[in-house]
Amino acid sequence: MAIYIALMHYPVYDRQERVSAAALTTLDIHDVARLARTYGLKGCYVVTPLRSQQALARRLIDHWVTGWGAQYNPTRKEALSLVRMAEDLEEVLAGIEQEQSRRAKTVATTARRYPQARSYGEMAEALRTGGDDPYLILLGTGWGLTRELIEQSDYVLEPIAGKGYNHLSVRTAAAIILDRLVGGAVQ
Amino acid sequence: MAIYIALMHYPVYDRQERVSAAALTTLDIHDVARLARTYGLKGCYVVTPLRSQQALARRLIDHWVTGWGAQYNPTRKEALSLVRMAEDLEEVLAGIEQEQSRRAKTVATTARRYPQARSYGEMAEALRTGGDDPYLILLGTGWGLTRELIEQSDYVLEPIAGKGYNHLSVRTAAAIILDRLVGGAVQ
Repeated sequence: MAIYIALMHYPVYDRQERVSAAALTTLDIHDVARLARTYGLKGCYVVTPLRSQQALARRLIDHWVTGWGAQYNPTRKEALSLVRMAEDLEEVLAGIEQEQSRRAKTVATTARRYPQARSYGEMAEALRTGGDDPYLILLGTGWGLTRELIEQSDYVLEPIAGKGYNHLSVRTAAAIILDRLVGGAVQ
Repeated sequence: MAIYIALMHYPVYDRQERVSAAALTTLDIHDVARLARTYGLKGCYVVTPLRSQQALARRLIDHWVTGWGAQYNPTRKEALSLVRMAEDLEEVLAGIEQEQSRRAKTVATTARRYPQARSYGEMAEALRTGGDDPYLILLGTGWGLTRELIEQSDYVLEPIAGKGYNHLSVRTAAAIILDRLVGGAVQ
């Protein structure tokens, strides 16, 4: 099963529910790459259309993968080697298609309720039985993925149910989502 | 079930496996407090013996709980209201005893293998059937909780198994641990 994850900085909502490009949080790149490595994912995309933010992310990745950081912390190198940059979702899908010779099915994650949302059990089953199809899990930064992007996705995952509280960071939400979807397979 | 969590900055190992006090990462306080609120925990302790670090954490908490941040982001206030400061583990245990009239059982978490380690299933069962005993989950920052602290704990939890990779951030590890131990109870 070829699973990829994308940390989407666009198109996401801002505080006022305007569609915008969220700023990178460099720690998110580290955390999601380390999760991708832990759960045996094939790649971790950082998606932003902003050139200056792409340059920042590339500097960070180069530092840990080929620069001084690679010697200082080889396990971080191992994780960050999975990270690739992309301008938009289309570029991510093209990259995966090049590697896997098939277009990925997209799995949107959201803290809101959608009627078409799948449970974690259903989605884990779809991944296990998905055959040769690659899957791409989409994580929203800022105030979350836009409704339009979610509705265009092949699957929507139900929100993480908390005790009446649904405001996790994207880092910790990614950890829970990956553990629920593929944690069983790596144990 | 009264469950607490403590983000321990001492006693932990540094890179050279010397016992030391790790520096606070303010994001960790936010992330672990938000997880504590999501999973219905009774409190989230930030433990450091360093006065300047305690002052920093208090400023952060005050900003979000009673200061300007409380109006700006009420859901953050809700999470950070669960945070308390302590100098050491003994002070945490005394605080819990005052609230629950019983001493908490400690559950150490670690990325290393210990012969006495319990599986997540066993530990979740212990929490469910623990009756009136409060439980305190200990998270190590830096390079992890010291062996001595782990061996003095009532329980040791097995490491999060990854595909030959065991280097998650404390934030994302906390998310997975709480979801595995109490996620079933909040769904």
